[in-house]
Amino acid sequence: MAKQYLLTPGPTPVPEIIQKKMAKPIIHHRTTQYTEIFAAANQVLKKVFKTNSDVVTFTSSGTGAMEAGIVNTLSKGDTVIVVRGGKFGERFANICNAYGVKVVALDIPWGTAPDPALIQKTLAQNKAAKAVFISLCETSTATVYDVQKIGAVVGATDAILVVDTISGLLADEFKMDEWKVDVAVGGSQKGLMIPPGLAFIAFSPKAEALMAKSDLPKFYFDFKRYKKSLAASDVPFTPAITLEIGLKQALAMIEAEGVDTFIKRHRQDAEYVRARTKAMGLSMYSKAPSYAVTAVNVPEGKDGSALVKACKAKGVTFAGGQDTLKGKIIRIAHMGGINRQDLEDALNVLEGCLKELK
Amino acid sequence: MAKQYLLTPGPTPVPEIIQKKMAKPIIHHRTTQYTEIFAAANQVLKKVFKTNSDVVTFTSSGTGAMEAGIVNTLSKGDTVIVVRGGKFGERFANICNAYGVKVVALDIPWGTAPDPALIQKTLAQNKAAKAVFISLCETSTATVYDVQKIGAVVGATDAILVVDTISGLLADEFKMDEWKVDVAVGGSQKGLMIPPGLAFIAFSPKAEALMAKSDLPKFYFDFKRYKKSLAASDVPFTPAITLEIGLKQALAMIEAEGVDTFIKRHRQDAEYVRARTKAMGLSMYSKAPSYAVTAVNVPEGKDGSALVKACKAKGVTFAGGQDTLKGKIIRIAHMGGINRQDLEDALNVLEGCLKELK
Repeated sequence: MAKQYLLTPGPTPVPEIIQKKMAKPIIHHRTTQYTEIFAAANQVLKKVFKTNSDVVTFTSSGTGAMEAGIVNTLSKGDTVIVVRGGKFGERFANICNAYGVKVVALDIPWGTAPDPALIQKTLAQNKAAKAVFISLCETSTATVYDVQKIGAVVGATDAILVVDTISGLLADEFKMDEWKVDVAVGGSQKGLMIPPGLAFIAFSPKAEALMAKSDLPKFYFDFKRYKKSLAASDVPFTPAITLEIGLKQALAMIEAEGVDTFIKRHRQDAEYVRARTKAMGLSMYSKAPSYAVTAVNVPEGKDGSALVKACKAKGVTFAGGQDTLKGKIIRIAHMGGINRQDLEDALNVLEGCLKELK
Repeated sequence: MAKQYLLTPGPTPVPEIIQKKMAKPIIHHRTTQYTEIFAAANQVLKKVFKTNSDVVTFTSSGTGAMEAGIVNTLSKGDTVIVVRGGKFGERFANICNAYGVKVVALDIPWGTAPDPALIQKTLAQNKAAKAVFISLCETSTATVYDVQKIGAVVGATDAILVVDTISGLLADEFKMDEWKVDVAVGGSQKGLMIPPGLAFIAFSPKAEALMAKSDLPKFYFDFKRYKKSLAASDVPFTPAITLEIGLKQALAMIEAEGVDTFIKRHRQDAEYVRARTKAMGLSMYSKAPSYAVTAVNVPEGKDGSALVKACKAKGVTFAGGQDTLKGKIIRIAHMGGINRQDLEDALNVLEGCLKELK
């Protein structure tokens, strides 16, 4: 079978060396062999998130960690500000609604990043707001948010800043502590190069102070259980052992390359994709393009879904647009295990399909 | 390296053919290729649970599905009866407590199964009780509960019966619909022969009726989202794709052997373990031994933890006792991918270590 190219913003291709590690005979999780694996992973995850806080791992999709960011810090009836500029901002709002947390929705046009001044104004108008929710990269629109500037704004208030870094991490720059981020949420199947099934979360001391007052019910996603276990080199519930083994291998590779070098390489890949698509006459959809994934507009009068389908028939999987963007954009990921050669090959296919498309 | 034997009650060894399937290049989850995989898995899972209800899959450890059984059916302030005869009965109670559900604890001596008449009496004394929580196999004590008789008792009331089948499924007999079980919870790393990371849940029509009134907050574990997605051949959140691929392979193997034949084979393995350990002079810990895992008492004056350690040094991993049973019992699993040859080899090691133990 010819090589298949998976260039969607998650899952991303898993390097063969990681696949092989995960395919070894399974081990038990209450053993030194396993605790060494996740202790090592935790240490490198801190470097990836650029934080001194513990980064704990859940067995869940990224949404589980988004929920954990809410249920561990907030109380019923609390007011929060949620930036809604795409599907994942909406998800934060939906989870808050499910838990009886009042959402002040800050709706911005899809494909744009929120103006930090607007967040400052909204905070001033909602002094009771306990938290502000944003994404690093809003995956549905391939847009990067200015977390640093928003962190400066939110950090000057009593509110905490919760950031979904799921798709942006390790492609778009992110510095949890320096940028005054209080809750950072990540996932396994993007920049971290492993299959979906693990999610990550870290809390700042400011968030932990709020945690002490939180009354939302939780058990499986109760951070305190994980933190307590971590201190005892243990896990509260049976973890996804094979994925954790893959994570350790992925983190070792990232550390060997250097976190910043890894990020820089993906930025260069993003720039390559931007240049190639521009040369094909495709315009950028996002006003603030992410380095994790690029969204290009499908030319006027052409059917984006047919284009995605034509590429897929030639072995290249891109993501189309979601909801109102269906058929209008194509999203090309350049994160995690996607390398330059994959991008060259895949963009050649895109170029060919574009010409053939009626 | 010599073969390592993992005979703990989860995780269990993953057959090589399943490992290989999971190690193939990853695919995207919003594709026909993937939806066919999970639709096929759902069909066989129904046969495994012996139910006409949909069995949905969460990316989580089994505890996540236990929580889902609670948050999808109950409301704040509800009263429930929880049988506590080991660590996993306790867990159901702890989750209920976390959500403000009042627990009538039916504490029974560890290593015994609850008397259905006692459950009937407790239900009569607590007419407002909305649910009864039990295990099929209480893993911590290797004890099987008489789900059929308890189902007959609970089925005659308005309460629902919630059963944790995580470790018992596919070794101890289980018939969800026929036995009037309303909520069945399962996990991937036991009888199903795949690594940890997936959990399963099915609801009876009686449980779904209660679900309509449930006011406990939920999002990631909200069954309605999964059911709605399933009807559209979709998943609400990115699933643990590689584990799901392994699941499909495992279920194909189980279906080829026949669910009942698979269960019978494990019962025969359990009987073999009972006979061999009896011949070694080891007595059974449980008064109602499960066919999934056998717990034997460590001989008086001997240190069970040292025995487990000695076996581990020879490549055989058994589980010891938990909490008050630490050092007092050894648990030998004979579920999922553990085969007769593994058991023969491992019991030979146990026999040798037992003789050498001071």
